[in-house]
Amino acid sequence: MITNQLLHPASIVVVGASNNVHKPGGAILRNLLQGGYAGELRAVNPKETTIQGVPAVPSLDLLPETELAVLAIPAAACPDTVEALAARGTKAFIILSAGFGEETPEGGVLEQRILQSCNRYGAALIGPNCIGLLNRWHHSVFTQPIPMLRADGVDLISSSGATAVFILESAIAKGLQFNSVWSVGNATQIGVEDVLQYMDEHFDAEKDSRIKLIYVESIKDPDRMLYHSASLIKKGCRIAAIKAGSSESGSRAASSHTGAIASSDAAVEALFRKAGIVRCYSREELSTVGCVLTLPELRGRNFAIITHAGGPGVMLTDALSKGGLNVPKLDGVVADELKAKLFPGASVSNPIDILATGTPEQLAMALDFCEERFDNIDAVMAIFGTPGLVTMFDTYEVLHQKMLMARKPIFPVLPSLQTAGKEVEDFIKKGHVNFSDEVTLGTALSRIMNVPRPATNEIELFGVDIPRIRRIIDAIPTSGYVAPQFVQELLSSAGIPLVEEFVSDKKEEVLAFAARTGFPVVAKVVGPVHKSDVGGVVLNIKGKEHLAFEFDRLMKIADARAVLVQPMLKGTELFIGAKYEERFGHVVLCGLGGIFVEVLKDVSSGLAPLSYEEAYSMIRSLRAYKIIRGTRGQAGVNEAKFAEIIVRLSTLLRFATEIKEMDINPLLATERQITAVDARIRIEKG
Amino acid sequence: MITNQLLHPASIVVVGASNNVHKPGGAILRNLLQGGYAGELRAVNPKETTIQGVPAVPSLDLLPETELAVLAIPAAACPDTVEALAARGTKAFIILSAGFGEETPEGGVLEQRILQSCNRYGAALIGPNCIGLLNRWHHSVFTQPIPMLRADGVDLISSSGATAVFILESAIAKGLQFNSVWSVGNATQIGVEDVLQYMDEHFDAEKDSRIKLIYVESIKDPDRMLYHSASLIKKGCRIAAIKAGSSESGSRAASSHTGAIASSDAAVEALFRKAGIVRCYSREELSTVGCVLTLPELRGRNFAIITHAGGPGVMLTDALSKGGLNVPKLDGVVADELKAKLFPGASVSNPIDILATGTPEQLAMALDFCEERFDNIDAVMAIFGTPGLVTMFDTYEVLHQKMLMARKPIFPVLPSLQTAGKEVEDFIKKGHVNFSDEVTLGTALSRIMNVPRPATNEIELFGVDIPRIRRIIDAIPTSGYVAPQFVQELLSSAGIPLVEEFVSDKKEEVLAFAARTGFPVVAKVVGPVHKSDVGGVVLNIKGKEHLAFEFDRLMKIADARAVLVQPMLKGTELFIGAKYEERFGHVVLCGLGGIFVEVLKDVSSGLAPLSYEEAYSMIRSLRAYKIIRGTRGQAGVNEAKFAEIIVRLSTLLRFATEIKEMDINPLLATERQITAVDARIRIEKG
Repeated sequence: MITNQLLHPASIVVVGASNNVHKPGGAILRNLLQGGYAGELRAVNPKETTIQGVPAVPSLDLLPETELAVLAIPAAACPDTVEALAARGTKAFIILSAGFGEETPEGGVLEQRILQSCNRYGAALIGPNCIGLLNRWHHSVFTQPIPMLRADGVDLISSSGATAVFILESAIAKGLQFNSVWSVGNATQIGVEDVLQYMDEHFDAEKDSRIKLIYVESIKDPDRMLYHSASLIKKGCRIAAIKAGSSESGSRAASSHTGAIASSDAAVEALFRKAGIVRCYSREELSTVGCVLTLPELRGRNFAIITHAGGPGVMLTDALSKGGLNVPKLDGVVADELKAKLFPGASVSNPIDILATGTPEQLAMALDFCEERFDNIDAVMAIFGTPGLVTMFDTYEVLHQKMLMARKPIFPVLPSLQTAGKEVEDFIKKGHVNFSDEVTLGTALSRIMNVPRPATNEIELFGVDIPRIRRIIDAIPTSGYVAPQFVQELLSSAGIPLVEEFVSDKKEEVLAFAARTGFPVVAKVVGPVHKSDVGGVVLNIKGKEHLAFEFDRLMKIADARAVLVQPMLKGTELFIGAKYEERFGHVVLCGLGGIFVEVLKDVSSGLAPLSYEEAYSMIRSLRAYKIIRGTRGQAGVNEAKFAEIIVRLSTLLRFATEIKEMDINPLLATERQITAVDARIRIEKG
Repeated sequence: MITNQLLHPASIVVVGASNNVHKPGGAILRNLLQGGYAGELRAVNPKETTIQGVPAVPSLDLLPETELAVLAIPAAACPDTVEALAARGTKAFIILSAGFGEETPEGGVLEQRILQSCNRYGAALIGPNCIGLLNRWHHSVFTQPIPMLRADGVDLISSSGATAVFILESAIAKGLQFNSVWSVGNATQIGVEDVLQYMDEHFDAEKDSRIKLIYVESIKDPDRMLYHSASLIKKGCRIAAIKAGSSESGSRAASSHTGAIASSDAAVEALFRKAGIVRCYSREELSTVGCVLTLPELRGRNFAIITHAGGPGVMLTDALSKGGLNVPKLDGVVADELKAKLFPGASVSNPIDILATGTPEQLAMALDFCEERFDNIDAVMAIFGTPGLVTMFDTYEVLHQKMLMARKPIFPVLPSLQTAGKEVEDFIKKGHVNFSDEVTLGTALSRIMNVPRPATNEIELFGVDIPRIRRIIDAIPTSGYVAPQFVQELLSSAGIPLVEEFVSDKKEEVLAFAARTGFPVVAKVVGPVHKSDVGGVVLNIKGKEHLAFEFDRLMKIADARAVLVQPMLKGTELFIGAKYEERFGHVVLCGLGGIFVEVLKDVSSGLAPLSYEEAYSMIRSLRAYKIIRGTRGQAGVNEAKFAEIIVRLSTLLRFATEIKEMDINPLLATERQITAVDARIRIEKG
């Protein structure tokens, strides 16, 4: 539970405070003092009466009631200390010490004792095994660097303290400012999800920061992460996150790091899609995305690039194009008017190259044209470094002034960190961020622009027959793969069109069915799970005698119980699958069938229940989406129907959590209709 | 022509030298002086007798004979100055001034006059419109920053001066050192290709730098770039390059920048593949790749990560895995032995996490284990930043010492640029590079590891019948699409198996052919180019009557001249195409047929003539390569045959340069055989 005493304590005690700033207990006190903490600061130290000028007491019982306690003492001493202080009214604890559950089982026991004390007395607990908590009121971290802080700065929440420190290193170099930094350590009481929940439930549109950056290795409570992330984003926040451990080896690395079981990556992708979180893969990317989010929101995908150096403009244009963003050609009378104001040889066709000799006044002019005159421009990239002949103060002052006034975002790309180091520093001190590499910026922008809005929370029923679904599930006798008739009934209850089919172990019945629906038909063995591998699927059976022959053959396959016949349909193969992931719920996958799923692994994922918008986002993020859309000479498939079936299936799953695994493979799709041809469902009954 | 006087002048004159270091003529003199130029330095200035302490003369005729002249005077004055100095023995010119062909046609005339003077007198010319040339002997650039220089540093060659400056900014921050920096400006005489040629032809394995970084917007002479890049790489060099303007908008940006026509990107990809050049897309990436190349060569793909902070190790593991590199699990007795030497809670399973409290001695131990004991490790990543409690000098000294001794490369990742700025600076001063972001490093490494070796120069004939090819080409009457019988003969001369086929406008002949080869057959209209679009292709014709019917129908299509019949084959569809690109020669494309080429654009490219190794590299860089290789339940195709056909086709093209465009689409491939089913060839006769 996050208490007000954690965020805004009137008094803080550092237990284990030290005069040695090379120890955590000394460094945190120094940071609190240097951070200008305005409340009452106290220290506990057995030997000294003052520590770094702060009054110290030798034991806890001599300490006045204190709102927040920071513990920098050996792990073994922590439980008693917490109990004693909590009993005397301390409502917040930050425990820096390591040596708990992350190291040994005995450490885990200590951790539990601390948690019990905190919970009993209603106290907040950050850590143990963390760097602490830093906000504008108190710098309760023992680490450096300390970023510049401001109310509309970024909130950083990290499950790894060292990673938070290194993210700050990368962010500070770019001028990114912070509102708070949370290191949750072992997250014994307060984890990343709790911080998000608190920020969401206490969100103040007037005062609160709107940008959240997250580093997390294991998502312990996906539901809460999803709910509060989406909620914050709907309130106007933006969230970017690294979920590390996405590869198999990375997961191993992550679990050795935190002792947590890594989440499946498809589930993470699905959760981020649903919440509208920008996914990042490196500190560099996260801090760059953070910088982009501090600028005014982008209203469109068309960029102007203003520069005095051609090369970076070319590379940036390439990067934006690759990410689906545009650098539209500028021409016509307005462009000519601008060109006339620049030196001979300057180019305005976009990039706008005002030449190495271009003046600050010309930069101002070009910026004004982009802001006011070029209607097809949504944002401006200004790339201005220096070969060192003159200082850049004038140029950067123009940028500064225009950035204050412009409605369209202006992205400053100032590459000369060595040669114009002072000028860049001065620019950053005015509160700006800087992107020193244009391509890194372009890539970050594409990532942000391609994230969908968060999904709605409502489950869309569309006539999915929930009571009938429950009746069918209840009627299924045992766990395991479900018999074909139940599969058929479940899909039908969800309104998912399934090809008509018939199952029997009697040849005459099978032949009669085929005669009624008409040839060609498909015949499949019922019983074995991997039918294709045992020769249990026969396509394109064109007549009665052929069917009779195949019936006999199929029934001789090991485990064969019956034969299924269905009319043979044509169309593009699609695939929908779902898997129940512990803690995440049902992850729904979609893709084109056949080699696209099996060989190319071209699938995208979403978390049930899914909205239409999410289903469309899933379909459109397939690499092979062009095939679904159709191209010259090749008809596409009915995308709306595909989305509908995905939504319907996700609703079915939401009300049939016994389903642990299922796939519909293939569905056959034409421009008009999509029909499920084969489906498997595995349930687990409690 | 690159002269010795350009590289190692005994005397240099700055024409237009100035006491004002905010002007190019002042800045370059300062750089020469600060660079400790040991030859004789002179200046030309109408008003002063000394400039920055350097003796100055007011006019050219008072100047003693000087080997290298640097011109920082208005464009209009340059031609006469060059002529006068060249006539008096100056053998090298660097012209900084702009205002030439890049701005106006009149400027282009000035440029030509300069070129003529230089060529007539055998003088080298760098520029105009450049920042100059910097090497260990003379710093003839007017820009900053000046990097640290050493004989085995990097050679940078850039077609954009400002981009070179910004690449230096990014490289210096990483500790990358240089041997030379070439800015070729308008490349009136000496372009990027000339510099490469010189470096190749004068390569001294004992003395020369082995790493070349290139920034280029237009490849003017692809043949020379290819030849000398490949040759240098075969001599033990590594080359990485940015070719900017790869997107359509980027090309527009590039051409407005340099006035050069951008090369097609597939051709660039093909050239880089053939030469073995590492392709980069940003300054950040180029400088990171440059840093990687300064380390000992990687002998394998298995990495150990040693760190005291889990998070970055996890992200790096993800990045390496994504790029096809491994972070193998470490276990067994050796791992246990290491674990016993570390603190409780440390992990050795890889990443090796020695914990935040880990000591420099433990780092040394872990490095020793990776160097000597872990046989399945090829290289080590050491991620060591700091939360600021203690300095990092000891830790980095351990890294430094181990890097001097180790045979396996050790990649230092030191993220704390703010907090341990001094320590990192100290480490870099010892001659090391630093990778501040682990994921950027992982991505750069993957890029390097996935570049093929340069191709051999030999054309592999394999019985391709060149005289017969020439006879066929000569027999083709006109330019345009070639008649089917010629297509058949050309492919047959190259030994490319083509499905047997027969063309006639007589129904009886067509029926007789089909009766001989057997049904089913395919029938196609001959005449229209886009046959499918006009319903001119009929598959799977199973009998005589059906064929007769389709013959009549096909002959009624507009422009129909005849009907082609061929047996209907089965297999996986493949595609091979080729296009003649001005200056590059034939670019050969390959891929899977159908939607893979037409919709997904999954093709890779190579430059004719192709070796087997290149053909394999092309095939294996297809996103859909897994389908060619085959997977569980699905047979692959005969990859060796596919490579052979690509090689044979490329040889055919090399001797039939009249072919401007062609494709074989589809080829039908099984595990055993690949047969071309349809092909189109367009020739242009001179």
